[in-house]
Amino acid sequence: MGKVTAHVSISLDGFLAGPDQTEDTPLGIGGMRLHTWHLGDPTEPADVAATQDLLKQRGAYVMGRNMFGPIRGEWDREWNGWWGDEPPFHHPVFVLTHYPREPLELQGGTTFSFITDGIESAMRQAKDAAGDKDVMIGGGAQAVQQYLNAGLVDELRIDLVPVLLGGGARLLEGVGPDVKEGAVN
Amino acid sequence: MGKVTAHVSISLDGFLAGPDQTEDTPLGIGGMRLHTWHLGDPTEPADVAATQDLLKQRGAYVMGRNMFGPIRGEWDREWNGWWGDEPPFHHPVFVLTHYPREPLELQGGTTFSFITDGIESAMRQAKDAAGDKDVMIGGGAQAVQQYLNAGLVDELRIDLVPVLLGGGARLLEGVGPDVKEGAVN
Repeated sequence: MGKVTAHVSISLDGFLAGPDQTEDTPLGIGGMRLHTWHLGDPTEPADVAATQDLLKQRGAYVMGRNMFGPIRGEWDREWNGWWGDEPPFHHPVFVLTHYPREPLELQGGTTFSFITDGIESAMRQAKDAAGDKDVMIGGGAQAVQQYLNAGLVDELRIDLVPVLLGGGARLLEGVGPDVKEGAVN
Repeated sequence: MGKVTAHVSISLDGFLAGPDQTEDTPLGIGGMRLHTWHLGDPTEPADVAATQDLLKQRGAYVMGRNMFGPIRGEWDREWNGWWGDEPPFHHPVFVLTHYPREPLELQGGTTFSFITDGIESAMRQAKDAAGDKDVMIGGGAQAVQQYLNAGLVDELRIDLVPVLLGGGARLLEGVGPDVKEGAVN
């Protein structure tokens, strides 16, 4: 059986995205700086290895709605994700949302399903779809936090990038402590 | 001329001390977990090297008042620091405070001076005292933040400890971004 993994690039001050996320700036101000290490053509051996691990195909993906797109509330206009006609997933993707929507099948084997009955349901469906392959939680911060707090993540990989964003969405906010109060001082 | 350095152990979620710091729990709940790697008798080579670096004598120290003790406001009772009669500094220590107090000379060459005219003044006095040796900013979070934001730290060493404290004093709060808004996206 596969693992449930999450892979995130965060700034030294802990942000997975910068402040002021908009449709034009989906990662917030400065957020793209968290990803230059694996975009383009990495040459550092550690970067190459981590990039290969990041891009490795999984059996299914789960992501929060804000990672899928900038629309909040009802699906009131056309939006098929940030990734164009052929997204890089090539497997089922389960998008967490409170607003129902028909599944969306794009080229190359990526189908986005919109899950409105909670993170456990989304994970169950992703595991079913993945079979013996891994399920990857793509992000964003809230989705990863919710799965961490639910104890549903087998492996969290943090790529810590030596930049300071000064604000935005923190990955490890409302997560932990990892031992009970008073257990250790 | 020496460098100005700061060495801090922080949790994976970015805290230099846990929540609820008191006189009995100076590092807050769980805060001691950040220091077990160098206390006692480290055996891992990386821990041994980092511990030696941490304990290396500097020419002078600067620290925030909360690192010196739990008293807030006026110095209304006797308090000579957390470290007993012979503190481990063996050099001048400049304590940032808003409340004047006479210098305190303890055994082994440690003198605590209480600086009320700001972080630049404390750093200037520490550099004068250190001569060609390093000045170490001992903490806590606010002191390090203020010196980082003032551009007065040559080297910040972060020992990232794989625990989650879930709350407390964050090191990199109100620090950065490290590039101007809009310079990079």
